[in-house]
Amino acid sequence: MFDKLVIIGVGLIGGSIALAARRAGLAHHIVGCGRASEALQEALKLGVIDATATPVAAVKDADFVLLAMPVGNMPQVMQDIAPHLPAHAIVTDAGSTKGDVISAARLHLADHLSRFVPAHPIAGAEKSGVTAARTELFDHKNVVLTPLPENDVDAVNLATEFWRACGANVSLMSPAQHDRIFAAVSHLPHVLAFALVEEISRRPNAEQLFGFAAGGFRDFSRIAGSSPEMWRDICLANHDAMLAEIDAYTARLNDIRRLIESNDGKQLMTVFEHARDARTAWAEKFNQK
Amino acid sequence: MFDKLVIIGVGLIGGSIALAARRAGLAHHIVGCGRASEALQEALKLGVIDATATPVAAVKDADFVLLAMPVGNMPQVMQDIAPHLPAHAIVTDAGSTKGDVISAARLHLADHLSRFVPAHPIAGAEKSGVTAARTELFDHKNVVLTPLPENDVDAVNLATEFWRACGANVSLMSPAQHDRIFAAVSHLPHVLAFALVEEISRRPNAEQLFGFAAGGFRDFSRIAGSSPEMWRDICLANHDAMLAEIDAYTARLNDIRRLIESNDGKQLMTVFEHARDARTAWAEKFNQK
Repeated sequence: MFDKLVIIGVGLIGGSIALAARRAGLAHHIVGCGRASEALQEALKLGVIDATATPVAAVKDADFVLLAMPVGNMPQVMQDIAPHLPAHAIVTDAGSTKGDVISAARLHLADHLSRFVPAHPIAGAEKSGVTAARTELFDHKNVVLTPLPENDVDAVNLATEFWRACGANVSLMSPAQHDRIFAAVSHLPHVLAFALVEEISRRPNAEQLFGFAAGGFRDFSRIAGSSPEMWRDICLANHDAMLAEIDAYTARLNDIRRLIESNDGKQLMTVFEHARDARTAWAEKFNQK
Repeated sequence: MFDKLVIIGVGLIGGSIALAARRAGLAHHIVGCGRASEALQEALKLGVIDATATPVAAVKDADFVLLAMPVGNMPQVMQDIAPHLPAHAIVTDAGSTKGDVISAARLHLADHLSRFVPAHPIAGAEKSGVTAARTELFDHKNVVLTPLPENDVDAVNLATEFWRACGANVSLMSPAQHDRIFAAVSHLPHVLAFALVEEISRRPNAEQLFGFAAGGFRDFSRIAGSSPEMWRDICLANHDAMLAEIDAYTARLNDIRRLIESNDGKQLMTVFEHARDARTAWAEKFNQK
């Protein structure tokens, strides 16, 4: 499909895309770039990428460029590669937020907007780094594309084909809609999990508390094991939607608090039943557990 | 060890204790009691219990009585069985809160307090009911006993032996200490998970939101699939500690909100890193994932 695929940021996501692209025969040559040379050597050793280079050198004859670094680093990388991108090269990204990535692209990839197709693969794991990369990471997972008005039709089509060939189900929506949806179902739960673990770990009897934490805590807090850097960047990038979600959640939690305070068992039961039914229906519909 | 074990409330917990007691040869005869006759018939059919009876009839010649119904139903059951308990019979419970269960016991089991040893097995699953019961549910899990000043020494020892023989690690602490610890590491996370699912499910675009929920949401919200009745009872029973925990959590979440609002990426990174490190250390220490 392409001669040269360049992946900037070869961690869990970038590495898994490299593996999936290789499985699908999407590129003859996969070049990886990144800040941490040890991680790149690891990626080479694992056969995830064929070669390493600086971003500037790598993109010069690239056909398809994937930006898979933390969203906070995207502006600098865009600025660095912009003067060196071939006119035909498709650029896509794997950022969990879209509004901020698109703002950076408008600033730094202004001459290349027709070929920049923003994307968000909805897949991940609590472990980060290329050693956690898996060929099947995107199989049957959602990838959301948020095309720009400036995009060439063939660029959107090629990006769509690329992600589909990596195993994903591709959906298209506006960047703003994307950022609101993922603030609610992904970004907020991560912040909530970090907040619980932080709260417990700051108590004088933290060791005792952790000693009695069991399966419920384990599941709830699993995502607090995620990359702090990535989630810091997401919180800042999706700033407005995050604040709105935290406020809505706090209000909902306060409703439940009031029911407990007033010993309103009947209403508490109604809330918990409704939530339980919604969780069960979701799990059945999407074959989750 | 005992001739007759009576289990009142043969659900996930009561059923699993019956199975574990049978494995350990703790009783010659296991009698199950409960409100739902269908569930009792299922328990009989599965071989979890040997016979069914009303609580009043069952306890008349019991050696060991386990109260494993939702904590909200305990006062009534205690009142019912109190006049019929043999003097030597040990009574223990499996309630997730202890202060309220002990208050009920002081009221309704006043003449039997020397033999009532409150307990909380720290094991469960998001599924409830006897069909989810498993022999190994308590193996290597914590069971907290909160003995009363009135307890006979041999009653505490026998209850300890019983739970150990079911596979558990037994710890002893005061009821108040127990209730504060579990409000933080168990009861609060359940309420937080119910609150998130409830909030999302009440949105006009709930279906779309759930459609993009992925692995992070799945893990975080798994405990929102738990029994609404059980968690309503726990919230009401552990009222004061729950309110204190919700307030502490809300304050912590608000700290993080302020960091997002002021775009304080440095401090946000510090908080997320600290939480991530605490979660990782917990998972390694207790061999969790």
